[in-house]
This record gives sequence, structure tokens and C-alpha cells, in this order.
Amino acid sequence: MIDAQLRDQYLHACEQANYSLLRHPQHSMAEQLKQLAASIDAGDKPDTYGRSGVIEAFEQDVAQLLGKQNGLFLPTGTLAQPVALKLHSLKRNKFSIAMHPSSHLLLHEHRGIEKLWGLKVQQVGAPSVPFSLAELKAQCDSDTAALVFELPMREIGGELTDWEVLDEQIAWAKSQGIACHLDGARLWQVGAYYNRSLAEICALFDSVYVSFYKDLGGISGAMLLANKPLIDEARIWARRAGGNPISLYPEVLAARLGLKENLPIMPEAVSYAHELGKMIAPFQDVQVTPQPPKAAMFHLRFPLSPNQLARKIADYVREQGVIILPLPRSGDDNHSICEIPVGRNAMSQPQDFWLRHFKAFINSLND
Amino acid sequence: MIDAQLRDQYLHACEQANYSLLRHPQHSMAEQLKQLAASIDAGDKPDTYGRSGVIEAFEQDVAQLLGKQNGLFLPTGTLAQPVALKLHSLKRNKFSIAMHPSSHLLLHEHRGIEKLWGLKVQQVGAPSVPFSLAELKAQCDSDTAALVFELPMREIGGELTDWEVLDEQIAWAKSQGIACHLDGARLWQVGAYYNRSLAEICALFDSVYVSFYKDLGGISGAMLLANKPLIDEARIWARRAGGNPISLYPEVLAARLGLKENLPIMPEAVSYAHELGKMIAPFQDVQVTPQPPKAAMFHLRFPLSPNQLARKIADYVREQGVIILPLPRSGDDNHSICEIPVGRNAMSQPQDFWLRHFKAFINSLND
Repeated sequence: MIDAQLRDQYLHACEQANYSLLRHPQHSMAEQLKQLAASIDAGDKPDTYGRSGVIEAFEQDVAQLLGKQNGLFLPTGTLAQPVALKLHSLKRNKFSIAMHPSSHLLLHEHRGIEKLWGLKVQQVGAPSVPFSLAELKAQCDSDTAALVFELPMREIGGELTDWEVLDEQIAWAKSQGIACHLDGARLWQVGAYYNRSLAEICALFDSVYVSFYKDLGGISGAMLLANKPLIDEARIWARRAGGNPISLYPEVLAARLGLKENLPIMPEAVSYAHELGKMIAPFQDVQVTPQPPKAAMFHLRFPLSPNQLARKIADYVREQGVIILPLPRSGDDNHSICEIPVGRNAMSQPQDFWLRHFKAFINSLND
Repeated sequence: MIDAQLRDQYLHACEQANYSLLRHPQHSMAEQLKQLAASIDAGDKPDTYGRSGVIEAFEQDVAQLLGKQNGLFLPTGTLAQPVALKLHSLKRNKFSIAMHPSSHLLLHEHRGIEKLWGLKVQQVGAPSVPFSLAELKAQCDSDTAALVFELPMREIGGELTDWEVLDEQIAWAKSQGIACHLDGARLWQVGAYYNRSLAEICALFDSVYVSFYKDLGGISGAMLLANKPLIDEARIWARRAGGNPISLYPEVLAARLGLKENLPIMPEAVSYAHELGKMIAPFQDVQVTPQPPKAAMFHLRFPLSPNQLARKIADYVREQGVIILPLPRSGDDNHSICEIPVGRNAMSQPQDFWLRHFKAFINSLND
């Protein structure tokens, strides 16, 4: 979507920048590997094909944190989710999976859920808002095996369905024998808005996927959480899909360290994002979604095409040494959307610092 | 197959042992991570979803070494092989994949090739010897899309089909429009026997899979090698299967280091295994397969059940501090098979050292 040359200019400018609004400070590969080596405890042992050692202990820890019986650490969420959905489908002998049009399964996985896993996708609701109970009732049918929820909804700015609505939707789905699966790639962010523990939130769902890089700063890797029979079957399907390497210990160690260091700052990151979003909202030429932010992220919409905006962003980063925006992730001739994930980088400065730069940046749009 | 308690006793004894005949010296997780950090060059950058940085450079290096247009680094061979076979199938609109009964795809992947990838397996030849051209002609049919070769054949001791026979088989397959795929998990071992470069060997095949842990001592990870159109399509299918993590740099760095350090010793390992196998052959109560060994590995067959043999092995390791055998990998009431992978550990001692211990061990079988 963005010209390759512009992308390179942006990335080059970012390398020289002194401040960034986005996510966590980046470590070099060497620094990260040394940190992982230093994080190893005396009793830690390597994993073997997903069993024993650091992987099994970490699966138990995360399962306990999320109130589920078992966990299965996997290379990616793109594996974790279809495996869970396949099992819900096989158990019910139904083949349709209902999901929001902005689901990762639809947008970023080359339709693997259909082309490899043999399931059918049912899109439910409108692209830019969460689905409603009325839409679920109208669009799910007797072939619906599972319903995918995403909390927060990444592609629409970290939107969160209100607890009572969620509760009602899940009660309805369960009454229909439809399994409820949570895409919790950024689950770590949602406790604050709901004012509930992660375990209370996960208790709504038959299966939960979480990610360890994004918010937590790990290297890569995901976990699927559910009851023991589902996880036992998931191991078999994960191996069928090539997701059972002889060892994943670097990813497990990084996930463990990331969870320990970054989960505790999540409430503060959510509150920081909430305040920052409210302060940006009154500005001309920029729209905050959702307004106000509910998670540790939000989207900004500008009235320029992605390439026009990318040029302005790259220039600003180069001239000011401050990364206030990533490259746009979507748009058309008349608008662009950028995503702000709030973490240690944003929080290292008072909100006023970023507001000052946003004002200057927005002024530059009319140059 | 082996009692859990016996397995634990063996593993515990191995932890205390001073010498091992098997593979390479093991590093702790911390040592390995520090070695990887130290192996990073100034220009190295992290990979992103399989693109750029260390992953792309390494793919190019291995592709050049093996004489193929492109490479695709993946988390496992259990992903790499079905992806290649799926693409051969789609291209030909044929759905059967012919393979030896000892193929990894049949024995160790929960039949993912059928249950997930939607292909049909055709078993060709007898379990304990490589298939012949006559068997190929009799058992492949008009639905055969691809034929899987394995060099060396791990489950039968590292057996290698003679070059002329291989050449004839591949010429016949190609004349039938059947794609030829190489399971080269241990390809690194085969140059010596054929007295040909790895690129000359790979030139026979439409697609090649290699592994970076086993012989090379990496952490995990595989590569698929083929022409550019196949690899471009393979990227899409790998993502569909969840095999496209945001970063794989620890595995790439370990693979790169392992290739650099361990590929050069392969000819010596093959020659060491050849000699050692010949020296063990005359012993009573043990049979070497193949005789003499052709690769850097061989199998030993003993006239005891797996649990009986495991008990003897665990006792020997505990009493002598020398690991001369792994636990048996197969067997029945009357026999057991152990695999000897030859690497730096074996080569650290003269063959006489191991022969002395084999004599003592074999004597202990009658105690």
C-alpha cells in the first residue's frame, strides 16, 4: 500500500530517532539473547517437542493465570486459532465458523481457515463496529460450530464490547451449542476496562488464544488455552500442521520474561492511552477511534491518502527525531488510518510531550 | 515403548556421564544463547514475518550451497514437506503422494498429510529396504503427483540407494510427470558416499527439505528449497498453516552457526561411522545396518526386547559413565534397534575406545 521507497525512508528515519510513541523500547538481537540467558533459573531445562522443561512449566503458569485447565505453547496464533476452531467443528460435526469481518483469520492468513483447515467462514456484523446480539441471531445458523470474539478488536482501534452485551451474546451462543473462542492476541490490555481479572474474562470462552510478542515484548509465540481434552487433541493437530518443533525454548524464555515485565504495566498503559486519546480528540484533521480509547491502543484517522500521509510522517521523524506515528495500515484516496500501541515508549514521556508533537505534525499537513 | 521409570533412570545416568557416542556435545540453554549473541555480525538485522534480515540472507546462502533458486526457512520439516507436496499436487491436479513405508510423513506426523493437507499416501516398497524401480513402476499410478525420496533413510539405518539406481528412478518418475521431492533431513551426510556435491545431488529433485538441528546442532528449524514460483507459493501455504512467525531469528542464527561449524566435519563423521560399523560387525549378539554404514549413522540390532535392552543400557551408563547407546527406538519381544548418530562426541575418541566399551556392554547382556 505504501511505496517501497517511502517505507525505506521512514524506517531509516526511525533508526535515527530519539523518541517513539509506539510500543516498547527495542533491543538488538544480541541484547535480547543475553537478557534471555540471564533470565534462566537454576531448575530450567530445555523443552522437547513441546514437552517438559521450560515449556510445560510456562504452560501451567499461564493456564493458572487465565483460569484454564491447560495451555499449549505454539509458534503462532495463526496456528493456535484454526486448531481450536477445527476441534470445535469436529466435536459438533458442524463446519461454519462465525467471525467479525475484521478478524485476523479473514484478513491476514490467506484464508487458511478455509483452504487448509476445511472450515467455512460466516461473516457477522459490519466492518467498523462490533457485532450485536441481533446480528448474531440473524447470521449464525444450524451449521455454526464456533463464534470468534476478539478482545480488544485490533482492526477497529481496540474497541471492546460492553461486558453485559458480551455476556448476553455468549449466553445466547452457548444456548445454541455454538462454541465461543477468544482471539485474545492483546487480551493483556482488557482487564482494566472490564475491571475484572483475566481469568474472569477467559471464563466466558471455551478456548482462548493469547500472544506473547505484541504487548508483552517477546520474540514470537502464542498459547492456546482450554480444557485438557481439547488441548490434548490440539497437540496432535499442531503436529499435523508442523507446529511442534523439537525446541521452542528461546521463544518460551522471551514470553516468560515479557509476561513478568510487561503484564504489570498494562493497567497504566490503558489509562495512559485513554487520557492521550481524549487529549488528541479535539484536534482538527484527526479522528480518534474509539473515542475515548478503551485499551492500551487506539487508531488515528487523517484526511490524506496513505502515501501522502506516509511522506509527512517520514519527514516529521527525520526532521524532529520523534516517531509519533507508524506508517498507515489502511486507507484510500481520501483517508488513512494509523495505529498507536501504547507501552513503555509512550509512557516514558508525559502526555504533553506527545501533544506538542501532534500539534506540530498536524500543522505540517497543510504545508 | 520404554517404561517411563527406565527412561528417567537412563536420562539421569546420562546427565552424570563423562563420554557419549551420540551426536554433538550438548550446551546448556544459557551457553547456546550466549554463543548465538556472539555469532551476530555487524550487518545482521532481525527478520520480520520471514522477510529481510538474517532469515533472507541465510535462505540465499543455503539455496546457493544446494544449487536451488530459492529457500524458505520454516519452523519444522513437518511443515516444509507437506507444503511442497501440496504444491506438486495442485500443479498436477493429482492427489496421491508415493513414499517409502518408513517415511517420516507416515510414522511421525499423525497422518497430517492426509488429515490436514488432503493428500493420499501411496506406500511403495518394503519397510526394511529402499524401493526399487520395479516397485515404483508397479505401485505409482496415474494419480501420483509426487514421489518422496529420503537420503539417507533414517528409519533403516542411513541406507542410501546407489547413484545409478537413483538416477534411473528419477528419470522414470519425471517421464511420468511425477514430481521428485527429497526428504533431506540428514542430507548433509550424503555427499561422501556419492562423492558428489550437495548441489549435484539436489539437482535431481524438484524440491528439497533440509533440517538444521539433527546433524548440525541448531535449535530447531528447516528449509524448503526449490525454484522461485514454488517457494513464492510455499510462503502462502506456510502462513496458512501458522508457520510464519513474526521472528525466527534465534533459530536462524543457530542454524547458520551450526552449518558453518558442523557441515565441514561431515565427511570425517561419515568415514568414522563407516569404520566403526565395520569394527562392530563381527561382534556376537549385535547386527549393524547397513553393513557397512554409508552415512554418519547406523543402526544396531540386539536380541533383547526394548525394555530388557534399556535396562542394560541404563545400568551400563550409570556404572561406566559412558553413553554407548541411546534407548531403543523400535523392537519387539525378541529384538531392539538403537540408532547411532556419529558427530563430534564419537570422534572425540579413537574407535578403539568405543569398541572396548561395546565388548564390555555385550558381555553384560548375558549377566
